[in-house]
Amino acid sequence: MRYDPDNIFAKIIRNEIPCHKIYEDAYTLAFMDVMPQVEGHCLVVPKTGSRNLLDANPDVVVKVMATVQKVASAAMKALVADGVQIRQYNEAVAGQTVFHLHFHILPMKAGTDLKHHSGALAEPVDLERQAEQIRLALP
Amino acid sequence: MRYDPDNIFAKIIRNEIPCHKIYEDAYTLAFMDVMPQVEGHCLVVPKTGSRNLLDANPDVVVKVMATVQKVASAAMKALVADGVQIRQYNEAVAGQTVFHLHFHILPMKAGTDLKHHSGALAEPVDLERQAEQIRLALP
Repeated sequence: MRYDPDNIFAKIIRNEIPCHKIYEDAYTLAFMDVMPQVEGHCLVVPKTGSRNLLDANPDVVVKVMATVQKVASAAMKALVADGVQIRQYNEAVAGQTVFHLHFHILPMKAGTDLKHHSGALAEPVDLERQAEQIRLALP
Repeated sequence: MRYDPDNIFAKIIRNEIPCHKIYEDAYTLAFMDVMPQVEGHCLVVPKTGSRNLLDANPDVVVKVMATVQKVASAAMKALVADGVQIRQYNEAVAGQTVFHLHFHILPMKAGTDLKHHSGALAEPVDLERQAEQIRLALP
């Protein structure tokens, strides 16, 4: 399956559309999911285009996982969560909706159920507040 | 939270209890989940002990992800699946039940729902057949 450079995450990386940014380095970007399944739901993407993990360059995956580790710890701390799930979906049948490699970071608290991802857009003010909390909790 | 070297995956790594092995190298091991949530459900673990992603050495994560990429592609091919989910749970509230870092690889087909992980043990003969199929599909 081919990579389409006009997917929404590629546009975010190119600054063509805005995001609630948490972290950025030369290789990766972390930002809030606008349709969160849980409070603090955020995403980590490589700046290099690949459809998902199946066609990703292993060197790119190394960079992405370094950011996933950092942001997962920070999101847990910022949201005062008791745990965190990492999820990465490959192809539509597995739940992938944007075809640019991304890792979901889902801070989990006792009694919290994941909402369906197809839910409504979150309030930008809430997303920006959470992004700021996570930024402050980064090492 | 501390790492307990007597967890079941550490025992598998030390060959104290058996597994349906898919792949092994100096740093990582991949084997079938004995309580599969979906056909072909397998796990990738580092041989080095860490509780989860939150306390894992980034160099260890690099090795684990290289194996995750390999085994995810092979599992999809072997199971004739249309996609694959990668999940990694940190702490009990996030669904972690064995406290040794591990990545779940879940081959997904259209119409397949994930079973609850607390389900029954799978038949060893089925797990061994799937392990063999995935081994044969490795690069």
